[in-house]
Amino acid sequence: MTRETLRIGLFGYGCVGQGLHDVLNSSSGLRTDIVKICVKDRSKKRRIAMSNFTFDKNDILNDPSINLVVELIDDAEEAFNIVSTAMKNGKNVVTANKVMVARHFRELVDMQDKYRVSLLYEASAGASIPIIRNLEEYYDNELLHSLRGILNGTTNYILTKMHNEGLDFSTALRQAQEKGFAESDPTLDIDGWDAKYKLCIITGHAYGLFLDPAEVFHYGIRSISTFDIRYAKEKGLKIKLVPYVGKTDENTITSFVLPRFISPDKYLYNVDDEYNGVITEAAFADKQFFSGKGAGGHATGSAVLSDISANSYGYKYEYKKYQQGTVSNHTRDLFLEIYLRYRKEKDRKMFGFKEVSEYFSSKFYKYVIGTVNLETLYSLRDQLPAMDVFIVKTGRKVMKARH
Amino acid sequence: MTRETLRIGLFGYGCVGQGLHDVLNSSSGLRTDIVKICVKDRSKKRRIAMSNFTFDKNDILNDPSINLVVELIDDAEEAFNIVSTAMKNGKNVVTANKVMVARHFRELVDMQDKYRVSLLYEASAGASIPIIRNLEEYYDNELLHSLRGILNGTTNYILTKMHNEGLDFSTALRQAQEKGFAESDPTLDIDGWDAKYKLCIITGHAYGLFLDPAEVFHYGIRSISTFDIRYAKEKGLKIKLVPYVGKTDENTITSFVLPRFISPDKYLYNVDDEYNGVITEAAFADKQFFSGKGAGGHATGSAVLSDISANSYGYKYEYKKYQQGTVSNHTRDLFLEIYLRYRKEKDRKMFGFKEVSEYFSSKFYKYVIGTVNLETLYSLRDQLPAMDVFIVKTGRKVMKARH
Repeated sequence: MTRETLRIGLFGYGCVGQGLHDVLNSSSGLRTDIVKICVKDRSKKRRIAMSNFTFDKNDILNDPSINLVVELIDDAEEAFNIVSTAMKNGKNVVTANKVMVARHFRELVDMQDKYRVSLLYEASAGASIPIIRNLEEYYDNELLHSLRGILNGTTNYILTKMHNEGLDFSTALRQAQEKGFAESDPTLDIDGWDAKYKLCIITGHAYGLFLDPAEVFHYGIRSISTFDIRYAKEKGLKIKLVPYVGKTDENTITSFVLPRFISPDKYLYNVDDEYNGVITEAAFADKQFFSGKGAGGHATGSAVLSDISANSYGYKYEYKKYQQGTVSNHTRDLFLEIYLRYRKEKDRKMFGFKEVSEYFSSKFYKYVIGTVNLETLYSLRDQLPAMDVFIVKTGRKVMKARH
Repeated sequence: MTRETLRIGLFGYGCVGQGLHDVLNSSSGLRTDIVKICVKDRSKKRRIAMSNFTFDKNDILNDPSINLVVELIDDAEEAFNIVSTAMKNGKNVVTANKVMVARHFRELVDMQDKYRVSLLYEASAGASIPIIRNLEEYYDNELLHSLRGILNGTTNYILTKMHNEGLDFSTALRQAQEKGFAESDPTLDIDGWDAKYKLCIITGHAYGLFLDPAEVFHYGIRSISTFDIRYAKEKGLKIKLVPYVGKTDENTITSFVLPRFISPDKYLYNVDDEYNGVITEAAFADKQFFSGKGAGGHATGSAVLSDISANSYGYKYEYKKYQQGTVSNHTRDLFLEIYLRYRKEKDRKMFGFKEVSEYFSSKFYKYVIGTVNLETLYSLRDQLPAMDVFIVKTGRKVMKARH
């Protein structure tokens, strides 16, 4: 391995861009030079000299002296334009944009091959946790049973506040927004989209399937109430938003994003605030757990830097699981045990419960614990936001449907 | 990156060797062929055909068709002979032998350079946890404040049994031996040598210092009593054996192995039985935690396989921190807060306590909590085994000595 001197064109100078700049300035081991930074807003005051900036993306994309494009902008479709043009022009790319990677996953993988360039995106899933690199490198030849975790720092921050301080959802959300952990439009985070995009990226490396995110069921924490938190606390549990992907047989996986009850003896129980955590279960390595900060400019910047560093010695993802092609199907036909808090019996009926194990009714709310088919949840996905219900997966294992 | 077909010569067919064989047989992505297995014992019954084995190491070391030697024997000095001859003969090497790597660290690093071969040893520290690779790849340009963890599965199994089932040390040790988690001579594990060797290997990659293990203070759990466990339980704590390495200033680190009190809100609290766990704290990535199985043929075999896989595309450790040379000193001149359980006042006096914060005395035992200098502990290292005392580091941070 020999290391190349990198000449970087940077897109975006927001929280992560500035975080990366700080991290780069403090690291002695890497020969890099940020040649130009492309930003959109001409009027914004910048903390470094204006001579570092350009407003024309072609100043970077058409500069033959730039060999690495680092893309850190918000807009997923504009990011895709930038990234695909950069790759066509023979430049390697590092990005942190999960929405772009998840939506254009297969295309991006094909382009790397076609234009013989490298696209790295460690920061797009789990921020500072090196999960993609570990899946690529370490689980290369391991039989991975499942992967689950906490991948969204915003919802984890909100849930931690609700649990520890008894706040209601909207107060906790407002505090998260004030602290800069939640966007002014928090939909992406609190409805579970962000966690789902990350899960889809991870699934590409864990199992070699590039899923259409629309095929994966996701559910967030928007309708969580203090009843739900109280129920969890009474049982000594916490509620966390947990994306899951796992094998159902040799060639088939399932995946979904759902809030989940976590007991104190589990690693995820202590993953609080804006931290993320990922648990893998595999045939030989058995259970492994990784945790680290899931949000913030410096944590994300440090993951971006690790990709830049890998780039300097020509590292590429090999997509080994995709090459092997063992897993070829994605199913939603299986049973999960859930807690459903609801008000109206007609709502409960829509879930088609089978094997109800607990039922509770009071003047204020009702809940039922029992098994439902994931396909049923998926079919209700457009109605769920308007229903006065909240769903939490219990700790019971995912069960294969037997018809 | 192109992948080479590997022709492997394997030394040792014990627990890890057989575990590796199982893992290799189940993995589809790697083109490997175990050409020959060298073992010592001619009379032992083997689970595969005898034609796979040889008793002469030169059958592997002098076979030019073998391009990778995998060394999994117990005897550290014989392992060093094998590994250095293999490297001289231009073969890449994968090993799991922490005693050998820690004792000959600098020599082994120099030989890789001299003979232009690769030596990988992920399985030597933390078994299934990919800590070395992450330190090499991910923390390449990160400012690492400290690293601590549980690196010895045997002592963790014993401590878990003592805590959960109220067993005394010797009964818990016997059970660990019956389960195959402890050797018939358990010195290496229970006196903290194993944890120290692993810590020294990690230090090489975390800070670029190849420490002489004799310079690092270690203390194990041999003299732990049920009093100590009871004390911990009353305070809601667990006792774990925790190696630590961290910066004291820009160019200086300290390191030691000591039992430590762990509170329930800490990740290490839930690392039980034969599991290992490592916590890193760094400037930008902040706190990260990795956990996985720290013992067993399959877990260790899976780490060995990940090295074999990395070998197939020419991966080498770069020892970047060593190349950068930022950290150049190792100090023992600092203060730790410890709990000392003891019987005789003359024993206590030897520790030179300063700032005593708690003191307890009863007919059966006494304890004191206060700060001591690590240099003092180190100077007592030969006397400690014969003293009727037990030492546990508290959760308070390591403090720089001010003279």
